[in-house]
Amino acid sequence: MSAAHPSPNIHKLVLVGAGLIGGSFALALKNAGCLARVTGIGRNRQNLLQAQELGIIDEVADTVAPALRDADLVMLAVPVGQMGPVMASIAPHLGEQTIITDVGSTKQDILRLARAHLGDHLARFVPAHPIAGAETSGPAAARAELFQGKNLLLTPVAETAPAAIRRVEALWQACGAIVTRMDAAQHDAIFAAVSHLPHLLSFALVDELSGRENAAQLFQYAAGGFRDFTRIAASHPEMWRDISLANRECLLAELKAYQAELARMVALLENADAGGLEQIFTNARNARRDWRPR
Amino acid sequence: MSAAHPSPNIHKLVLVGAGLIGGSFALALKNAGCLARVTGIGRNRQNLLQAQELGIIDEVADTVAPALRDADLVMLAVPVGQMGPVMASIAPHLGEQTIITDVGSTKQDILRLARAHLGDHLARFVPAHPIAGAETSGPAAARAELFQGKNLLLTPVAETAPAAIRRVEALWQACGAIVTRMDAAQHDAIFAAVSHLPHLLSFALVDELSGRENAAQLFQYAAGGFRDFTRIAASHPEMWRDISLANRECLLAELKAYQAELARMVALLENADAGGLEQIFTNARNARRDWRPR
Repeated sequence: MSAAHPSPNIHKLVLVGAGLIGGSFALALKNAGCLARVTGIGRNRQNLLQAQELGIIDEVADTVAPALRDADLVMLAVPVGQMGPVMASIAPHLGEQTIITDVGSTKQDILRLARAHLGDHLARFVPAHPIAGAETSGPAAARAELFQGKNLLLTPVAETAPAAIRRVEALWQACGAIVTRMDAAQHDAIFAAVSHLPHLLSFALVDELSGRENAAQLFQYAAGGFRDFTRIAASHPEMWRDISLANRECLLAELKAYQAELARMVALLENADAGGLEQIFTNARNARRDWRPR
Repeated sequence: MSAAHPSPNIHKLVLVGAGLIGGSFALALKNAGCLARVTGIGRNRQNLLQAQELGIIDEVADTVAPALRDADLVMLAVPVGQMGPVMASIAPHLGEQTIITDVGSTKQDILRLARAHLGDHLARFVPAHPIAGAETSGPAAARAELFQGKNLLLTPVAETAPAAIRRVEALWQACGAIVTRMDAAQHDAIFAAVSHLPHLLSFALVDELSGRENAAQLFQYAAGGFRDFTRIAASHPEMWRDISLANRECLLAELKAYQAELARMVALLENADAGGLEQIFTNARNARRDWRPR
């Protein structure tokens, strides 16, 4: 760390939800020597106890108020649909210096909830989204390297205190992430297209095929292309239900653009338009080959 | 090999097209000690010369007739759209004992072409489909292990000589494949659902996004889910144009079933139907997790 960076040292992190993302964040900070103590709170006590066994958290708190009293940082690492109730339950107990952050995959709705529930603490709420999911979930899937070299987006608003932004930024950099700041609306539009839409398309294919009479035979002959296309169909249903609803407007726009593209493909096929089909496939192949993922 | 199996020894294989699949077949048979000599023919001379350099084929033939004269086996490993012209060009030169086989991803149209072009040689034409593609192509991508433990389907017809079927079956078993016989119509319906449809859906997403003004930014934030979902969008455009047209009826039925599923998803999202969305996602996740690919 250069001297220009604020210290990322955290004496106490309160982790709300100790799943893949929250757990990996705690492990990464512990590994980097930036974090002394982690207290876990949340509705899923079994997950928390497992996270404690795995050394991700140091203790499980039974009640919210004492756990929050001396926290430097509170991370909300729960499905997007639980963000509102969680914010409402923690807000009365937050200290005047405590920074709050989240890891939700949608940002406009979480900012809306933060405005509704966090009151004056909004100035120390730094919305964040690490671009490092997996189809696995739960504390056992957590690993310190998850964010290494991965994008992390911060979507602060006018009210967000610059010092709080810099502190959260430094923590994510200590986890190995490449941090970029972005407007929340732009964030939601981008991720509807490149993440939320493909997830729904993959869920749709597997759901549709699995409901057929000959599903067992179909799956028997499915191979590598199917495997990769449908990997994300094994993702967490509740998490994706919440993301879909939270980013509904953007996602509906993406689904409709995709439906139009499919209708165009169906028409080309109905007309046996070899040139038109090959053009689409060639465009796609070139774009996919040129793509360099982070 | 048990004594019950016919000998897979091939003195001369004529390979029409020396790409990923044909090249891997030749390498696998050579590795298994089943194959003495491979002659390559085809429209892409550069591919053939590269295959010769890589040791996949032993010689490149300039003209078809002498190359075919003493072949035990002719393998048609070209895009589905070239099968008709290739069959027409080889038919007059095929020996009375020569077995012909193919590796096309669609089977009804190839049988239609074989009936139209191969005349009496139809009895020794054994249609085959190895379920072991990749988004790579060309002779440099070929490898002897490609078919190890993978499914291979044979779709013979009433006229196909049992001895020819058994010989081709033994060759694929020598390549490590798990061979199953199946009706061509059933084959085409299954692969429209589990292979051809996902390819078109993946091509569609990348084509649609790549045409946008902010495509560069979208691709910049695309991550692991997008990577896997779109891996098959880097597949060979001409090959997939041909497969799409050859299996048009089945593929259109699949596209329409998928469009209906998407319309259902859009309606659930428009109605903010959390339970309905979660049900789809849960069905898909369970089916995907239960799936054991070969």
